[in-house]
Amino acid sequence: MPYVNIKVTREGVTAEQKARLIQGATELLRDVLGKNPATTVVVIDEVDTDNWGIGGETVTVRRGRGQ
Amino acid sequence: MPYVNIKVTREGVTAEQKARLIQGATELLRDVLGKNPATTVVVIDEVDTDNWGIGGETVTVRRGRGQ
Amino acid sequence: MPYVNIKVTREGVTAEQKARLIQGATELLRDVLGKNPATTVVVIDEVDTDNWGIGGETVTVRRGRGQ
Amino acid sequence: MPYVNIKVTREGVTAEQKARLIQGATELLRDVLGKNPATTVVVIDEVDTDNWGIGGETVTVRRGRGQ
Amino acid sequence: MPYVNIKVTREGVTAEQKARLIQGATELLRDVLGKNPATTVVVIDEVDTDNWGIGGETVTVRRGRGQ
Amino acid sequence: MPYVNIKVTREGVTAEQKARLIQGATELLRDVLGKNPATTVVVIDEVDTDNWGIGGETVTVRRGRGQ
Repeated sequence: MPYVNIKVTREGVTAEQKARLIQGATELLRDVLGKNPATTVVVIDEVDTDNWGIGGETVTVRRGRGQ
Repeated sequence: MPYVNIKVTREGVTAEQKARLIQGATELLRDVLGKNPATTVVVIDEVDTDNWGIGGETVTVRRGRGQ
Repeated sequence: MPYVNIKVTREGVTAEQKARLIQGATELLRDVLGKNPATTVVVIDEVDTDNWGIGGETVTVRRGRGQ
Repeated sequence: MPYVNIKVTREGVTAEQKARLIQGATELLRDVLGKNPATTVVVIDEVDTDNWGIGGETVTVRRGRGQ
Repeated sequence: MPYVNIKVTREGVTAEQKARLIQGATELLRDVLGKNPATTVVVIDEVDTDNWGIGGETVTVRRGRGQ
Repeated sequence: MPYVNIKVTREGVTAEQKARLIQGATELLRDVLGKNPATTVVVIDEVDTDNWGIGGETVTVRRGRGQ
């Protein structure tokens, strides 16, 4: 019954990588807390680099500096 | 003043269905808790089936099996 | 498979009212989008009035004025 | 280390405005709570007007009436 | 820079289990997407069983039936 | 109509500081995007240090090392 939300920047995450994130998060909840995978929900949000900030500036600006 | 967030898979939800979800959630908060509809906010997130997981796999994979 | 999050101020919501919110939100998703109630998740967050703001001030302050 | 999520309707928010929101929210957490800007995360969600409801109706409908 | 939110029912999760969830989610993002653990944030929300619904009823009611 | 959610660790945030966060976030949305303060909602979540992770470990552990 757990609900997991993963937010990452939208920078070419593949369908195969998303599938691995969903499988891995579901197994983590099963292994640590014994939660039933059948009712574990995982939602991945991809966020544009203009819309994600850290250190007071957008990721777009940071990527432009090579960070 | 309540805030309601509804997350569903992005599978052709129409504008009319969204309007019904917003009206229904607002009425639910009014009927159960007496909340003022004028300040009740409802936000609907549509999530790609690649980005939604249940049972450790993506909805895309489940839909491919006819589930 | 939908996920619904309802946020309200913590002002004496009863277990019976919470049960009605959960039942009502689940039925809304079934009626409007045909979603399966068995996998519809509803999470209610109760937020202290000091921690909820509208109009630039806390609900605590508004309640103190009788609003 | 704080996390700030800002949700607004998707109505032409520019990259420059997003940068100002991120900078402003980061400074607010530093000024009020002394939080380190280097680890303050801000995520902006833009929501279609069909998907945002207030007063029991979508913002699309309200905008159509000039509100 | 990823942000992970894990919601589970409040049913005696220990500090050691929380630490394992945080470590595991951080490693998952590093392994699948190459994300830097130093800036990966994980937030765990524990939700009262009265406030969590599935199948249209609260977890409290389900637990009372032995589910 | 914007919705702002601020998550910080639960480490003695005062009611006065919460009021300043709410006022500041509301003014930010007004100044940058011209949003109406009357319908701007701000919700502050305080998260236990056991439940907040960064760098793969809990804030409790980091605070224990003086970080």
